[in-house]
Order: sequence, then C-alpha cells, then structure tokens
Amino acid sequence: MMETVPARQGRAVRLRAGQAIRIVNTHGSQVVDTWAFNAADPTEAMSMEHLHAFLGSVFPGQGDALVTNRRRPILILEEDTSPGRHDTVIAACDLHRYQSLGCKGYHDNCTDNLHAALSMIGFPCPQVPAPLNLWMNIPINPDGSITWGEPLSRPGDHVILRAVLDCVVVMSTCPQDMIPINGRDCTPVEVQFQILD
Amino acid sequence: MMETVPARQGRAVRLRAGQAIRIVNTHGSQVVDTWAFNAADPTEAMSMEHLHAFLGSVFPGQGDALVTNRRRPILILEEDTSPGRHDTVIAACDLHRYQSLGCKGYHDNCTDNLHAALSMIGFPCPQVPAPLNLWMNIPINPDGSITWGEPLSRPGDHVILRAVLDCVVVMSTCPQDMIPINGRDCTPVEVQFQILD
Repeated sequence: MMETVPARQGRAVRLRAGQAIRIVNTHGSQVVDTWAFNAADPTEAMSMEHLHAFLGSVFPGQGDALVTNRRRPILILEEDTSPGRHDTVIAACDLHRYQSLGCKGYHDNCTDNLHAALSMIGFPCPQVPAPLNLWMNIPINPDGSITWGEPLSRPGDHVILRAVLDCVVVMSTCPQDMIPINGRDCTPVEVQFQILD
Repeated sequence: MMETVPARQGRAVRLRAGQAIRIVNTHGSQVVDTWAFNAADPTEAMSMEHLHAFLGSVFPGQGDALVTNRRRPILILEEDTSPGRHDTVIAACDLHRYQSLGCKGYHDNCTDNLHAALSMIGFPCPQVPAPLNLWMNIPINPDGSITWGEPLSRPGDHVILRAVLDCVVVMSTCPQDMIPINGRDCTPVEVQFQILD
C-alpha cells in the first residue's frame, strides 16, 4: 500500500530488521530529510558524521550501508533510481533557519516535523541527528564552499532503504520555500512511501 | 599561564563571554577534537551541520563565527596562524572506530575523552556533537570521497577561539595511532592552551 507524506510534514514508520521502505519522489523535486533510530534505544541513531568515516565519502551510493553513532549499519541503501545525489552535511531546517532568511513568525520546518512524527507513533526522542537529506543537491567545491543546488531527481525516482536493525525511520518533506532547494518554483510537495517485506 | 592537554587525553575549560582560548599545536602534527557547549544549557552546542549551512562551507576560516544547533555564534575563530585546514565532517573517534581498524581491547578515544573532560569540571552532558577537528586535514574530492590527510600545520601554530556566549570548551588530543591522521609517525602528542581575557 502506498502512503503519503503530505507537503511540509513528517511521518515516522517502524521497520523490523529485514523489512524495507521505498520512498518515491513523486514529483521529482522534493527533498526528504530522513532519520533512523534504533527501535530498542533511541540514543543510537543513523549518524552522518560517522557515515562519512565509514564510507570514506560524503555521498552514499546504491548498496552502501548507513551506519549509526555506534558505527554499525542500521539501513542499507539498497536501490536508488535517481542520479544519486543526496546531502549529508547540512542540518535539518528549523525555525532559526527561516528567521535568518527573513521569515517573520512561524514557518514549518524539518526539525519540528521530526519531533511531531515521532510523537505520532509514541517514540519521542529529544535528539536531532544530522539527517540524510534525500535528493538534496549540495555540491562541495574544492575550496570547501557549498552550492545550494536544485534536485537532480526526476518524477517517480525512488530509493529503497532496507532495515538491518529494528528501527524507526522518519521522513520530512522539507518545507523550504525561500530558496530553491526543492526546485526552482520553491513549492514543497508530497512524496509517497511503501513498506516492503 | 600555558596549560597542557596531555597526549591522548581531554580537557574542558569554562569561558565567559568575551574571554578566549588560545590552542597551540605545539609539535604541529596533532589533531584536536574540539567542542563547545552553552554553559547555561548543555543541549545547545556548537554544531558542524548547522555551521555548514551558516557559512556555506565545510571549512571555517579566520574571522568566522562558529554556531550552535540554534544557529547563533558561540565562538569566533578569531585567529589562525596555520594553513587553516580543519575538518568538520568526521565524527570523533570512539572504541567502535578502533575496533573496526583491528584494535583488540580498549583504545583511548576522543568520545570517551569528551565525557571524561566534562566530568572533571562537573558538567556532564550525554550528547556527542560532531566535533570541530582542529588541524585534521580531510580534503573532500569532487566525487564526495574524502582523503585522510596529514596535518598541514607547523610546530607552534595556534588558533584563538573567542567566546560569544558563556560556554564550556572541550579539547581532546586525538589518540589516533593506527592511521597517520596525527602525522606519518602515528604518535599522538600533547598540545598547550591558554585562557585570554
């Protein structure tokens, strides 16, 4: 059954080891901030800074294991039909980020979406690890500067993440509409997902 | 007064806003994993993933503000006499890292040094943010792969970090002796530091 993460929102799902989640970039332009927590211990979570050392790369590719802060795989990036550009160095957006861009008042954001999604399934967790930003296109130049690119993905591209541990996976359809991180029309949209046994 | 962080150990110091710490790479070859926590609230800490978005770069340079997970400056990198190559994408080493490199039994590591150093000053904090790895030379190649380089710094190079908030700064002289991250002789050594008003 296909389910939806509405635009600008978060959803959390539980996966048993061996199950997988297929996340579909329905419109091709949507960044999805993604986290994974050990279902038995929320202090163990997928960790980008540990992943960099584990992979020897800032760009995970098809077949790569995604590791936790204990340096063991929690998910496998089993399939990726997109050009494979996913960001691992940028924090989830939060209210402070939108305020720094000039937003007055509240703005939906991936950090609050993470907490809301975890609350919905009764798995509260105070920590906010650096996310795997699916389809977020952030080239890193030789001098270390980054470019805020548009996604390279196409409508219908998907990734399959296979659980190695019993875990909770959280997705947030990034509500960024002030810079073209979700495509040049700056319009966050929904994505779909499916649990695979 | 110059103080010492012995080889393979951690030290924590409290800085009031306006004070600074000078950290000297005494032998030129030593990586120093560095953290900063808001003294009034340890859930606010210097955050590399937020820094990347704030700076638009993975390499902070002289004059740059170093921000927290609330995207406000906690330290300023006021002075840097070294070639300025400091890593911001690699996790602190931990026992799991050394085991993955083939170490049997215990190995000193920066994660345990962080906790020990914070305990020494009565500021326990369970979280382990991604550190600012002073002098750790990790070039990122265009394909995203990283190179585990040797420090580019010279004996006596120093940085000055000026506190914007009342904070706790933690330094760990990285005990990595299994790959040449602390120079080709793989010998962790001491560094020195000094509090400046």
